[in-house]
Amino acid sequence: MTRDPGLASWLQLTLTPGLGAAGLRAMLRQFGLPQAILQRKRSELAAFASAEALEALDSPQVGHAVARSLEWAAVPGHVIVTLAEETYPRALLEIPDPPALLYAAGRIELLSRAAFAIVGSRNASVQGERNAESFAKALSDAGLCIVSGLALGIDAAAHRGGLAGASSTIAVLGTGIDVVYPRGNAALAAEIASRGLVLSEFAPGTAPAAHNFPRRNRLISGLAQGCLVVEAALASGSLITARSAAEQGREVFAVPGSIHSPLTKGCHALIKSGAKLVESAEDILAELVGFRPSGLASTVAAPIEPPLTGLLGHMGHDPVDVDALCSRAGLSAEQVSSELLRLELAGRVTSLPGGLYQRLEKGDRR
Amino acid sequence: MTRDPGLASWLQLTLTPGLGAAGLRAMLRQFGLPQAILQRKRSELAAFASAEALEALDSPQVGHAVARSLEWAAVPGHVIVTLAEETYPRALLEIPDPPALLYAAGRIELLSRAAFAIVGSRNASVQGERNAESFAKALSDAGLCIVSGLALGIDAAAHRGGLAGASSTIAVLGTGIDVVYPRGNAALAAEIASRGLVLSEFAPGTAPAAHNFPRRNRLISGLAQGCLVVEAALASGSLITARSAAEQGREVFAVPGSIHSPLTKGCHALIKSGAKLVESAEDILAELVGFRPSGLASTVAAPIEPPLTGLLGHMGHDPVDVDALCSRAGLSAEQVSSELLRLELAGRVTSLPGGLYQRLEKGDRR
Repeated sequence: MTRDPGLASWLQLTLTPGLGAAGLRAMLRQFGLPQAILQRKRSELAAFASAEALEALDSPQVGHAVARSLEWAAVPGHVIVTLAEETYPRALLEIPDPPALLYAAGRIELLSRAAFAIVGSRNASVQGERNAESFAKALSDAGLCIVSGLALGIDAAAHRGGLAGASSTIAVLGTGIDVVYPRGNAALAAEIASRGLVLSEFAPGTAPAAHNFPRRNRLISGLAQGCLVVEAALASGSLITARSAAEQGREVFAVPGSIHSPLTKGCHALIKSGAKLVESAEDILAELVGFRPSGLASTVAAPIEPPLTGLLGHMGHDPVDVDALCSRAGLSAEQVSSELLRLELAGRVTSLPGGLYQRLEKGDRR
Repeated sequence: MTRDPGLASWLQLTLTPGLGAAGLRAMLRQFGLPQAILQRKRSELAAFASAEALEALDSPQVGHAVARSLEWAAVPGHVIVTLAEETYPRALLEIPDPPALLYAAGRIELLSRAAFAIVGSRNASVQGERNAESFAKALSDAGLCIVSGLALGIDAAAHRGGLAGASSTIAVLGTGIDVVYPRGNAALAAEIASRGLVLSEFAPGTAPAAHNFPRRNRLISGLAQGCLVVEAALASGSLITARSAAEQGREVFAVPGSIHSPLTKGCHALIKSGAKLVESAEDILAELVGFRPSGLASTVAAPIEPPLTGLLGHMGHDPVDVDALCSRAGLSAEQVSSELLRLELAGRVTSLPGGLYQRLEKGDRR
């Protein structure tokens, strides 16, 4: 893989504390690529950064951080993707605050795939995890790479389902890309780095910090065409991801459940405020404008009508009289009449003028 | 109760086979009340009814049927309400095909109450029945008389909840008002006739017939300001009631549930096509335009935030430093720092510049 010769400059600017992404984007617009920015006199940059940030820019600390990131990127399978590169995910260019660079470990080509986010509670139910995994596998098989946040519970299940399907998975971290958090997902993280893609905007070594997780969530939704919330409490990070998806113009989907479970309250709140209720992967695929599923191998079985048994099986859709039924079914008039009465009381058959009977379709009766 | 002197004429016209409700309404518009219609030459009525119907009009069979209905109406607590009477429910005058008369047994004054329909599967789950009963009681307590169809399962539970609340219940039958169907609800029917109201548009003695149930469903929804479906399969009578509610301009509500239960598929289909997802009686009351609840004694408990324990309980909503926390909590700096780290990793606390810490509200974190 060809390395951007200016990578050290990108790193120097993004790793300087106090030099925000907005300021960096403004400098990029004003002066061009990072190498050009850094060739400017520091006084010329004063309009875009604080005095402290400009002082830190050339400090040994930032130099060390740059060296550490370059060292990380020298490992095979590790890539740092900058805003200026072709491989930078197009979907992120649409969001208001795309990160200047992304640390990526694994199959970098997944960044160009159509993607779909699945998120939810860390304290998920067993059924919730199964649902997440099942939706993820079906959507992955249909051509969507599954994006989630490598949290316990729903996130982990979504990643597993994505890996099991044809289009793999992307885990977006709220920590440095080399920090495995939570520890319980270490094996899953390693598998995703090998068969999927692990992604972070935070410098290597960045420890878990609460304020980084909501920031990370905007990337989960931003990378995706839509976002499914499988289980979520009323006040939960999954709802932050869903809100950020809606703000980014992504379709939001939610799985309903019992009105007595705290883990469905977040999903129900989303549906009440306009998210689509979904029962199957097909429900999602039908809503994704411009996405053509590559294969519709659904894991959700279509509802099966029970076969018609007994007299009903002989009735067809048109009115019929008792004599005809006797000959079709090989029964006596007595037997047919008594069975017709039973079916009529059960609401499966209706009597018509002239001694005719008609089968009622399930949609026609109460 | 004053009896309409023309009741026998109303009965004669409605009990004549082949003389439809639309034809009767046209004659009422043309000639005035039933007594006036019957004084017309039969040839003058030919534009409104078939020759067979006109012949049947003065037949002994119709005479017997009229006598039977009058006999039924002579029993205390039994009333026949015609379109022309004040007590005829106003809500039914809004629907396209109001019945010319209603047989009513019980508390006739319930016909003037604000009403709400709750329907659902006959083969309901235990939880579904509990939900129906709980919604019904809460809405009944809020001033809405609960309308349903006296079927097994959800309907029966809705009636029980309505009776348990302050505003009682109305059972609308698909049979003659003196025919108890299904038998399993005989005791409930008797209790509704005593403490609520039983209603039917069918002549006494009318046996269960499948085609009468969808007709009956339009009255359930027509009497009500809105209709809640608690559990329903995809092809079910409850969806007919919901459709008829929507056609009559009534708001439709549905209770969500597991995506793996066949009994939620009907509810989910309704929500997908625009019905409101509801988790509590309050969700419904908030949507009923023009209805002012008489008392908000909800059976659905508000979600309770767990109390903040340990260090979080000492943090308030503003940034605080370790020293202040030590003195507030009576802990050593060592203890406070280690607990803050734990809380930070758990996403409950965030660190700010200057050695400050801030509690994260549940909505702010993932």
